[in-house]
Amino acid sequence: MSWSIESKEVNHNDFLTEESLFFLGNGYLGVRGNFEEGYQENDKTIRGTYINAFYDEVEIKYGEKLYGFPNTQQKMLNIIDSQSVQIWLDGEKFSLFQGEVLDYQRMLRMDKGYSERMVHWKSPKGREIKIWFKRLVSFVRKEVFVQEVKVEPLTEIKEISINSVLDSDVANFSDPDDPRLASAHEKLLSVKDVYEKSGCQIAIAETLETKLSVCCASRTFLDREDYEYSHKIKDKKIEESYSLSGNKNVTFTKHNIYMDSLRYNENLGDQAFNLHQGIADDRFEDFLKEQIQYLDDFWKTSDIRIEGDTKLQQGIRFNMFHLLQSVGKDSMSNISAKGLSGEGYEGHYFWDTEIYMFPVFLMTNPQIAKNLLLHRYSILDKARQRAKEMGHQKGALFPWRTITGGESSAFFPAGTAQYHINADIAYSYVQYYLVSKDEEFMKKEMAEVMFETARLWLDAGHFYKEQFRINSVTGPDEYTCIVNNNYYTNVMAKYNLLWAVKVYNRLNSDDPESLSSLMKELNLKEQEVCEWEKAAETMFLPHNEELKIDEQDDTFLTKELWDLSSTPKEKFPLLLNYHPLVLYRHQVCKQADTVLAHFLLEDFTDRETIENSYNYYEKITTHDSSLSYCVFSIMASKLGYRDKAYNYFSKTSRLDLENIHGNTKDGLHMANMGGTWMGIVYGFAGLRIKEAGIHFSPILPEEWDALEFNITYDKRLINVYLTKGKVTYTLKAGQGVNIFHQGIETSLELGIPKEKETESPIYTSY
Amino acid sequence: MSWSIESKEVNHNDFLTEESLFFLGNGYLGVRGNFEEGYQENDKTIRGTYINAFYDEVEIKYGEKLYGFPNTQQKMLNIIDSQSVQIWLDGEKFSLFQGEVLDYQRMLRMDKGYSERMVHWKSPKGREIKIWFKRLVSFVRKEVFVQEVKVEPLTEIKEISINSVLDSDVANFSDPDDPRLASAHEKLLSVKDVYEKSGCQIAIAETLETKLSVCCASRTFLDREDYEYSHKIKDKKIEESYSLSGNKNVTFTKHNIYMDSLRYNENLGDQAFNLHQGIADDRFEDFLKEQIQYLDDFWKTSDIRIEGDTKLQQGIRFNMFHLLQSVGKDSMSNISAKGLSGEGYEGHYFWDTEIYMFPVFLMTNPQIAKNLLLHRYSILDKARQRAKEMGHQKGALFPWRTITGGESSAFFPAGTAQYHINADIAYSYVQYYLVSKDEEFMKKEMAEVMFETARLWLDAGHFYKEQFRINSVTGPDEYTCIVNNNYYTNVMAKYNLLWAVKVYNRLNSDDPESLSSLMKELNLKEQEVCEWEKAAETMFLPHNEELKIDEQDDTFLTKELWDLSSTPKEKFPLLLNYHPLVLYRHQVCKQADTVLAHFLLEDFTDRETIENSYNYYEKITTHDSSLSYCVFSIMASKLGYRDKAYNYFSKTSRLDLENIHGNTKDGLHMANMGGTWMGIVYGFAGLRIKEAGIHFSPILPEEWDALEFNITYDKRLINVYLTKGKVTYTLKAGQGVNIFHQGIETSLELGIPKEKETESPIYTSY
Repeated sequence: MSWSIESKEVNHNDFLTEESLFFLGNGYLGVRGNFEEGYQENDKTIRGTYINAFYDEVEIKYGEKLYGFPNTQQKMLNIIDSQSVQIWLDGEKFSLFQGEVLDYQRMLRMDKGYSERMVHWKSPKGREIKIWFKRLVSFVRKEVFVQEVKVEPLTEIKEISINSVLDSDVANFSDPDDPRLASAHEKLLSVKDVYEKSGCQIAIAETLETKLSVCCASRTFLDREDYEYSHKIKDKKIEESYSLSGNKNVTFTKHNIYMDSLRYNENLGDQAFNLHQGIADDRFEDFLKEQIQYLDDFWKTSDIRIEGDTKLQQGIRFNMFHLLQSVGKDSMSNISAKGLSGEGYEGHYFWDTEIYMFPVFLMTNPQIAKNLLLHRYSILDKARQRAKEMGHQKGALFPWRTITGGESSAFFPAGTAQYHINADIAYSYVQYYLVSKDEEFMKKEMAEVMFETARLWLDAGHFYKEQFRINSVTGPDEYTCIVNNNYYTNVMAKYNLLWAVKVYNRLNSDDPESLSSLMKELNLKEQEVCEWEKAAETMFLPHNEELKIDEQDDTFLTKELWDLSSTPKEKFPLLLNYHPLVLYRHQVCKQADTVLAHFLLEDFTDRETIENSYNYYEKITTHDSSLSYCVFSIMASKLGYRDKAYNYFSKTSRLDLENIHGNTKDGLHMANMGGTWMGIVYGFAGLRIKEAGIHFSPILPEEWDALEFNITYDKRLINVYLTKGKVTYTLKAGQGVNIFHQGIETSLELGIPKEKETESPIYTSY
Repeated sequence: MSWSIESKEVNHNDFLTEESLFFLGNGYLGVRGNFEEGYQENDKTIRGTYINAFYDEVEIKYGEKLYGFPNTQQKMLNIIDSQSVQIWLDGEKFSLFQGEVLDYQRMLRMDKGYSERMVHWKSPKGREIKIWFKRLVSFVRKEVFVQEVKVEPLTEIKEISINSVLDSDVANFSDPDDPRLASAHEKLLSVKDVYEKSGCQIAIAETLETKLSVCCASRTFLDREDYEYSHKIKDKKIEESYSLSGNKNVTFTKHNIYMDSLRYNENLGDQAFNLHQGIADDRFEDFLKEQIQYLDDFWKTSDIRIEGDTKLQQGIRFNMFHLLQSVGKDSMSNISAKGLSGEGYEGHYFWDTEIYMFPVFLMTNPQIAKNLLLHRYSILDKARQRAKEMGHQKGALFPWRTITGGESSAFFPAGTAQYHINADIAYSYVQYYLVSKDEEFMKKEMAEVMFETARLWLDAGHFYKEQFRINSVTGPDEYTCIVNNNYYTNVMAKYNLLWAVKVYNRLNSDDPESLSSLMKELNLKEQEVCEWEKAAETMFLPHNEELKIDEQDDTFLTKELWDLSSTPKEKFPLLLNYHPLVLYRHQVCKQADTVLAHFLLEDFTDRETIENSYNYYEKITTHDSSLSYCVFSIMASKLGYRDKAYNYFSKTSRLDLENIHGNTKDGLHMANMGGTWMGIVYGFAGLRIKEAGIHFSPILPEEWDALEFNITYDKRLINVYLTKGKVTYTLKAGQGVNIFHQGIETSLELGIPKEKETESPIYTSY
């Protein structure tokens, strides 16, 4: 079961959640797991199809609007719906909500990349059939969503009708009962053209403000020829109808091709039509074949095997699969907070990418990782413009939430004020460089991003009594907003600045010409680089001597402690039950903040501080954010708190599968999915990426028999196999390389397993 | 000219500003100075009539809405318009925008309480007339707005028509060109009934959400009988028409009676009709007579005489007059930020009342002052409820902006976070008590307010290392929001707590029974009082030893200094040109904050600190708030900076008359008007109210010959007359009393002037 998830019951309360869990996507296109035949009137459904980064701009309303507040917000749109297929048996419509469901099984196959739903159904009048709905969003041909419906009559049926619908009259989801979803902006796509061309049903729609176009072209096939066919266009819908005798099985196939003007410019209808020509002879099994091939390749490097815990095994595979389904692979898009699985967070990209999801791809699919960085690079100009709006003389300020670069955050204390996103992006560039050794990339894109982010810090902070300080920002913990010298922000900025200087120095010695041309382009002076260095060296990192912990910000510890133990359960998450000022004036954390900094940059502090800080902040952290558990798990691994490491990990790995946060219906928690992977690779295996090379400090959780995964590192593939008390590193591809095991350098040769002891939970200071 | 303001030109650019400057009101009713005959289509006008506290609730829109953000906002409504009167001469309509204006004069009489507009006009076809428009909003009969229009034909005119309109189809002002005024909520009043009854034209309308009713009943009169009369009701308008021969003068009078359901409950139409019966025989001169009587009484105690500066003399009278016109006198209302002169700030009441306007009434019209406190008392229950919403276990939290008690602030960092309003209100209660010695009031309303506000501080702050600290609030300076230990907030809270304890102790010894019953009602424990005392005594007041100044908050001085001298002029006010985060991370102040605290509570710090603080904060204060100059003037007086005191004062006294902030059109700056008075009485005359009695420390500005004013104090009237180097105190009414002159106690006997030297700008520590 660990390669699939299944559902065997028709349970109304699970519909919405399953729509997210069973969604299919390929990073470009995402289709929620809605029922082809539709729902009852009273069942809530979020019927959705999305293209990554396909968006419109909507006005943000403010009770009081101040300078620099964004006027508009980007919003990922629900696009043309091609999912609908209805079956009629002698005039009785197939529905899960009438007649009798004799057998039911729904399955998502993570190894093969498709989903299937089997229903054994008896109609109110006694007609009996089995139906298999299969669907697949192709990883190989990203525009393609294929559906197959096979009907097997089990009793006498005179006529089977199959109705296929292409519906352009769609809107984004809104829920008048939930103020967070009762958006006024649900209808943002206007239909431009709906027509038929040589058996292709084509619909083209345009966004209201951004004037982007999207096209869906559908083509349907039967495996029988004894049918009557009709076709009509009405109210922005195209309906095709097949009628045929019910005396034998029939298989219906629907090819849906999606294209958008962001990637395909103009004449989308013609382009889609042409694409259809190339796949007209293919059927579901053909697409499946290449899908399996693609996924075999993926799992070969990306699978994590857990021996001894099937549920967690399933959880991690489920998470990896959905990450793959959601990640934008074309450098024109990124991974939104809910991936392509739902509309929560409006399809926006956050720091979640860099800190929680990028590492997964960095260590398994470096090309995807690079494209994520390139997407950020593509919005650098807008970040420069935003920096100006935000009163900065120089540099770039990346938006807290965005699709194509415009700041889309409507509440700046927990939005724009999170300047740390700049350092998070810079951090991911450094990580990529350390893993890929991609010098060309470093010289151009990386250098530019490092320089522009470094400049921003110089402008945002200032020197005070020989220290560099950064005031009035918000760290990752949104339960304390607008603070001075947030430890996380400052230490990440320090790293950002240090690396800007390093990149400068490297270029200066390796390729002074390209440096000089970049400096000219950016109007960058050498003096600035000296200031970066000085700022980095004198960066103020708040530390409390009494408690021997790093302070979340320079006054955090003077605030009143929140008594979590006597807070009633129903008061969580706190942000839904307390005014922000109540949270701000207490020591209480939504998520890891200083602890996260200690994970990302352990070298700027000492073990005692890390341990004390962990223990201190753990007591006041609510984990109201899904980004929290994994960090606490990783750091518990580091500190040798094995129970904690395992317990926190368990909470992350099945967060969506068990709908732990109660809002999986709005989409999957993608960052948490990345966090699961990190909990294993950075946590249990203790991976750290440093200039000197990659480090491991592994310990297998006691609950497991073995753990195995691969990582890619500088054109190599390294297999890590952990059993009780032992780890085996095997270089599976690429040239021999040195790695660090528990701080000690060790060499790997191609194909020769290297075994090491992993006894005793020790602390390793690299 | 100091008793009036005048306008002698028809200048389109001044129309809007003059509508505010020439507004008439009585604290209950306010009518903007609109032209009776209307405007050209392209001229912007804010045609407005308002009843203090007559409001509707409108939804507040948020891009991101968090817990405790108010759902709705109260809004003062523009009500039924009775201003319109049109004159036709043989079919030619009188208009300032056609024909020729041969002479024009507009005047507001502050001594007599009415306004007049004279136009000598020649029609396009050569007909010539003089018209006098007079209007008056009665201080004596608060429901009454009277208009008189006298027409004098100067050439041959066959027929004069006078059209009088009562228009219920009104809306609040919105301006699509100005996002701050482009409200979606302009139309909030729906007409319920429009009818005629025995010569009375009656319109009744209702608010959309709050379902409050308002009625306007008009009755018109001519001084001639040779007319034809007609009357029609159409589209929510009532039009009356008089036609008569143009061979002689005619005077038209219109009585408009306004009543609202907040004060008059039901059957407003009948009540207004009955009221009309009582004034049917009165004409403009009759109303004027009693108006003058009322104002004579007012000016007798409230006038400030400046010898040697007519412009400032005019300024201060203008300000005093408008304060009187705007202040709610019925304890069901208060003074909104723009009074009844316009719609800016939605008719909301702020801390402006307590800190900038209440003192004027306290020292000149104690009954009005008391009613302002009673208004706050009337919303104490809502403040208790708000405290709960804001997560407090006990106490009351007054809303930052409100009409009837609901928090109406849509941006909490510069709204709800200004907890200091609680202490400001408590402060004004103490001031009232010290001036009035009103023991009954102290026992009931004051005690309750002091206890509930004190409780709030205990809950909002906490003890940290033996100090009481208040985190995550915003002080008066909105250029640094959500800070810890704002000096102003903390010192005001300290005073609040100290006085809560004092009131407790006084009641405990003087009237233990009423104390015990109040404690029971509030479920107040003695232990709480001990905590108030401890919190007050250990209150943390941030002080910087190096600079020897009090710190605005506990990290303010670690921030980067804003370089005001190199900030371009067009970048002011800063809040319209910089994102809040830019302001927050700099040392830059919108207005006096610590300096204001030093004015209100000078006894909690020393002279050196006050002087250093003044000099420090002055350099970084933009005075972008109209509440700033007066405080700097007062404190400059205190510190002997005579030029500064005078210069800051000059800027306050004519702020609206010269439209210095450029937005007088939206209404007058009422707090600044109170500030002018304070600049004189607290500034030049050095008044302070202390437990030991009232203190003066006067110095006449060098630019003036003399200054004279009265104050009321504990049922006495004291005249203060300042000339160069000399002050004369005369007790004009009441029993003998001791006052302090430059720190030295001196006794006053009824009618016996006491002369004192005022040489040398000395500092007095009382």
